[in-house]
Amino acid sequence: MSEETKQTQPLVGIIMGSQSDLNVMDAAAEFLENLGIPFELTIVSAHRTPHRMVEYAELARKKGLKVIIAGAGGAAHLPGMVASLTTLPVIGVPVKSSNSIDGWDSVLSILQMPGGVPVATVALNGALNAGILAAQILGTSNAAIADKLEKYKTGLKDKVMRSVDELRRGDRDID
Amino acid sequence: MSEETKQTQPLVGIIMGSQSDLNVMDAAAEFLENLGIPFELTIVSAHRTPHRMVEYAELARKKGLKVIIAGAGGAAHLPGMVASLTTLPVIGVPVKSSNSIDGWDSVLSILQMPGGVPVATVALNGALNAGILAAQILGTSNAAIADKLEKYKTGLKDKVMRSVDELRRGDRDID
Amino acid sequence: MSEETKQTQPLVGIIMGSQSDLNVMDAAAEFLENLGIPFELTIVSAHRTPHRMVEYAELARKKGLKVIIAGAGGAAHLPGMVASLTTLPVIGVPVKSSNSIDGWDSVLSILQMPGGVPVATVALNGALNAGILAAQILGTSNAAIADKLEKYKTGLKDKVMRSVDELRRGDRDID
Amino acid sequence: MSEETKQTQPLVGIIMGSQSDLNVMDAAAEFLENLGIPFELTIVSAHRTPHRMVEYAELARKKGLKVIIAGAGGAAHLPGMVASLTTLPVIGVPVKSSNSIDGWDSVLSILQMPGGVPVATVALNGALNAGILAAQILGTSNAAIADKLEKYKTGLKDKVMRSVDELRRGDRDID
Amino acid sequence: MSEETKQTQPLVGIIMGSQSDLNVMDAAAEFLENLGIPFELTIVSAHRTPHRMVEYAELARKKGLKVIIAGAGGAAHLPGMVASLTTLPVIGVPVKSSNSIDGWDSVLSILQMPGGVPVATVALNGALNAGILAAQILGTSNAAIADKLEKYKTGLKDKVMRSVDELRRGDRDID
Amino acid sequence: MSEETKQTQPLVGIIMGSQSDLNVMDAAAEFLENLGIPFELTIVSAHRTPHRMVEYAELARKKGLKVIIAGAGGAAHLPGMVASLTTLPVIGVPVKSSNSIDGWDSVLSILQMPGGVPVATVALNGALNAGILAAQILGTSNAAIADKLEKYKTGLKDKVMRSVDELRRGDRDID
Amino acid sequence: MSEETKQTQPLVGIIMGSQSDLNVMDAAAEFLENLGIPFELTIVSAHRTPHRMVEYAELARKKGLKVIIAGAGGAAHLPGMVASLTTLPVIGVPVKSSNSIDGWDSVLSILQMPGGVPVATVALNGALNAGILAAQILGTSNAAIADKLEKYKTGLKDKVMRSVDELRRGDRDID
Amino acid sequence: MSEETKQTQPLVGIIMGSQSDLNVMDAAAEFLENLGIPFELTIVSAHRTPHRMVEYAELARKKGLKVIIAGAGGAAHLPGMVASLTTLPVIGVPVKSSNSIDGWDSVLSILQMPGGVPVATVALNGALNAGILAAQILGTSNAAIADKLEKYKTGLKDKVMRSVDELRRGDRDID
Repeated sequence: MSEETKQTQPLVGIIMGSQSDLNVMDAAAEFLENLGIPFELTIVSAHRTPHRMVEYAELARKKGLKVIIAGAGGAAHLPGMVASLTTLPVIGVPVKSSNSIDGWDSVLSILQMPGGVPVATVALNGALNAGILAAQILGTSNAAIADKLEKYKTGLKDKVMRSVDELRRGDRDID
Repeated sequence: MSEETKQTQPLVGIIMGSQSDLNVMDAAAEFLENLGIPFELTIVSAHRTPHRMVEYAELARKKGLKVIIAGAGGAAHLPGMVASLTTLPVIGVPVKSSNSIDGWDSVLSILQMPGGVPVATVALNGALNAGILAAQILGTSNAAIADKLEKYKTGLKDKVMRSVDELRRGDRDID
Repeated sequence: MSEETKQTQPLVGIIMGSQSDLNVMDAAAEFLENLGIPFELTIVSAHRTPHRMVEYAELARKKGLKVIIAGAGGAAHLPGMVASLTTLPVIGVPVKSSNSIDGWDSVLSILQMPGGVPVATVALNGALNAGILAAQILGTSNAAIADKLEKYKTGLKDKVMRSVDELRRGDRDID
Repeated sequence: MSEETKQTQPLVGIIMGSQSDLNVMDAAAEFLENLGIPFELTIVSAHRTPHRMVEYAELARKKGLKVIIAGAGGAAHLPGMVASLTTLPVIGVPVKSSNSIDGWDSVLSILQMPGGVPVATVALNGALNAGILAAQILGTSNAAIADKLEKYKTGLKDKVMRSVDELRRGDRDID
Repeated sequence: MSEETKQTQPLVGIIMGSQSDLNVMDAAAEFLENLGIPFELTIVSAHRTPHRMVEYAELARKKGLKVIIAGAGGAAHLPGMVASLTTLPVIGVPVKSSNSIDGWDSVLSILQMPGGVPVATVALNGALNAGILAAQILGTSNAAIADKLEKYKTGLKDKVMRSVDELRRGDRDID
Repeated sequence: MSEETKQTQPLVGIIMGSQSDLNVMDAAAEFLENLGIPFELTIVSAHRTPHRMVEYAELARKKGLKVIIAGAGGAAHLPGMVASLTTLPVIGVPVKSSNSIDGWDSVLSILQMPGGVPVATVALNGALNAGILAAQILGTSNAAIADKLEKYKTGLKDKVMRSVDELRRGDRDID
Repeated sequence: MSEETKQTQPLVGIIMGSQSDLNVMDAAAEFLENLGIPFELTIVSAHRTPHRMVEYAELARKKGLKVIIAGAGGAAHLPGMVASLTTLPVIGVPVKSSNSIDGWDSVLSILQMPGGVPVATVALNGALNAGILAAQILGTSNAAIADKLEKYKTGLKDKVMRSVDELRRGDRDID
Repeated sequence: MSEETKQTQPLVGIIMGSQSDLNVMDAAAEFLENLGIPFELTIVSAHRTPHRMVEYAELARKKGLKVIIAGAGGAAHLPGMVASLTTLPVIGVPVKSSNSIDGWDSVLSILQMPGGVPVATVALNGALNAGILAAQILGTSNAAIADKLEKYKTGLKDKVMRSVDELRRGDRDID
């Protein structure tokens, strides 16, 4: 295992616009925890704590973060604004919050960034994939993480194959 | 005419995310000019000049602005972020920019603000209405502006009635 | 406290198309109440009481209202028609009523007003923001209201910071 | 031919929100003209001439109109507001105006009327069908018009059959 | 009461694609019943009983129907196909059935008819309005029905005014 | 009965991206079962078992399958990718999975295949129709299956006629 | 070559709602021509020639057709109605006609068929894929056609590989 | 300059589904070129060259690529399928191709990946942002690239400030 993943310095910062996003965003934290990747998680609201957001984004690289995961719903400005304030890769998670129009507002507010300031957008409520993507980014320079991702991928396949077997033992599969 | 509209201190700040928004946003400036309402107009990009945006929004009230009109396209964060940094009323103009998905991204990114931080959103490319709305807001405490708005409204009616007359003289109107 | 907010003359008129909109629209009333801004609230249906609507809109300025908040669902014509009959600023609240197509009809019927007749549209079901926006408009000429809005904004930040602290004491935040 | 269609008293009122809608709405007038159904055509703007609209709608039945065709674009309130002011059948034509979001705003603003106040909505820019529908409504009590509609329907079929024949003489149809 | 509404010959045919549409479509029947307008109601499926549909549409005028109301969900072809087979006015009711994509399919399949074959489309699940529209069409040549529609319209206004009064007696209305 | 439908060699392969799609996709299996058409059913995930997918698609013709039914939700790549790997007809069933944006992603990911690689797409969650379509394809060269489809079609009509009768016996149908 | 493809009896019927659909639908004819599959092509309008449509659909199997390709735009009822009148597989091509709302109406009117009556829908304007799908259906019982489809598939790959080579010889590909 | 960016071993693989995507995707290549980041660019079609796609994705890590940028239009399966075959981060660029429904199909097919297999999606036609995001990912372990990204960000700001100055010298800016 590389030195990097052993240390406690967070490599990934998970932020979200509201405490109510936590039940969606926790999937990113859980994935990183399972892979042993140190992360921090907190609430940063673009609209209610804009200065905290500026500070968080501008200090991120200095304090050792490598990737930022930002989740928000409705007119979701957090991921894009953080991306405007750092050159770290920013992963955006559109959250289908209660005040959202079926999630379209969250998706488009995060995805449709202008040329110059990318946000790596994942699916609506796709916090698990945000965690995996953060690990993939770290894995570009950390062989231990890359290995764990290969194992995770194998695990995905194994789970499908187990459901194939279950189905075969039942009455639907004539295979 | 009231003292307020005679002075040159801008009462309305018109900002936009990009120079390419100017051909849309100019309609707001033109309306205010016609009503003799002093305004300033400049470019403030949420994503490319975030600190300029913070400074602009936070100084706005101090320097005497009463209303801010902010136009942007795509993932349009400027109006909502400015609204997060001032208690002045912020009017948002969704611009159908070239990188927009039929304007839906601009509209939803500006309209769907979370509870606590309103943006007064007008129609897609509706900069004229943003200018009128700014004047209506000033007109709540300035009788001269309110009077001019009444005259403008009468003018709208007169223009319709002239087209009614033109149509009557033509061959389509049997009225 | 300024003289204006002490008096009982309503400054804001809150109207809605149907009694069923009240549970959404009440958030605007509650906000104004908390800020001590006098308001009136009633039902005015564009489609079932068009003459009442015309009368309401045309008397609004005369009876001392400064801002009108109008909420409606489906083919929501109330905000736009009121705006056609007054030069007061009109704030439109799209309500996701039971007969709505996911709220899109309410949003577009209110937002997409033609040039000349603006409606300051807020988010779907965004009555709280309509109340705040009304206060911001009054605050352009009333320092006491402006001060209260600053305190409200600080309160929004404080609430986020408390949730940050709660999260830090829990097991998710490694910060 | 019945007495009704010989007289010059207009039976159908065609109105539209703006002179720019005329190139779309003219198809309704042309159809009625071809069927010899007397009609009137004028401009009535819900947002710029609301009193003219109220007067037009309330006088419509008294002056002998049987059907109203109303076309408008964007936040298209004209058809629904006229329907709120008369018990005549009102046919709404959503116009894809320049300030429309792909026509969705026009369609939903006209179609999604609340229970109690119907608008008979036709397709986007479907003014021809509005004219036909007006004739069908008159045809429920006027046998001459009903006969003409049968002939028109036969004509539609004949036109298809001619294109079938043309295609058969060409190289594509092996039939 | 006019002779026409006393007789039992149905004037309106209410048809729907499936028994499951009945709970939506019943509102049209109930309205006609309340106005004393004779109608018939049955199930005619465009896709499962196409010959029954052709026969129903082609006999409609002969057996004395004046208006057809057709409701259907999903790829809703019944209203448009009936309209292709009769010159009676056809009112289409988009039904939000269980297999619908939020009702968009029902709405667009009924509304977007090609030039030549109109369907008078009402709101999603708007069967009540279909009943009213049918009565309005009959009312163009039947003064008794027209009078009843005026009374119904007055009733709509009265109901709003009662809710205004209720609200005034409560604590929300400062009016 | 033809020899083909008596044998146990599966003619239709039903695959789906996840075990959670089974409650939707089972309707296809049930229809084929009722018609006595041998089929196999299993789970093949484009994203978690891509090699299994390639193998399944490439062996399909060799092992005697005539048609493949593939169901998937969200970014649904299974039907299109299978179609890229076989020249058998592939029927795609968009599944409205829990992570879908109202089903639009599933529908568009399956329907909008580029020129050269068709997928025969059915309605959202339309697995029953996928089963029928598979039978229709087999019926182009198997008279026994074609006969059964005619009987099934008659059954659809009979079921409507029974609901017509039920309605006639009730109080709604004046027919 | 099998006997089936040598004969001139059409195996595929290509129909479309209007002559204006021909420039889109011709791609299906061209593909079948290139594969030597006999077809017929004509115009059948659901809304203007409903009886011709019924007759065409009901005679299709009797006269030897194996597959029907039906293209239409707007409220596109032709594919679904033909499917209601035959047990042959029906392939639907949504056409983005001039009166369409961005093609959504065509797509949903064809795709969202109720359970019992499938239409094999291809992409918007996807007539080429309709032709290929028809060939794939015939190929389930005709080895010669299946072989030609394999060659066509190889051709698709070859065309990509040629563009890969062209790119490699240019300056963009560092590969 | 770090050793990594001097060598010619490509670090980024840019692939696209069709030669016609090149005019959009070239912006990613140009950005990497400007930053001196070695890349390769070629055409890999998910639907026409599926085996080439599998091979490309599975060899990517072995041959030293760190990031893959994949662009595609319509039912865009390339980015998601590549992501299913590698643990490298995959950036997806939705391309608004000619056969697309306003880009919605491309966006949703790429964005809405299931849990387990992320694609870092950028805006419609957002290839420039894909290039920047690739550099940001490399910059997490390469200080030279990170520095260049900071300079690029400064350049974005400078360009805005130049347009601010131009505007100030013109007649619109009263600032």
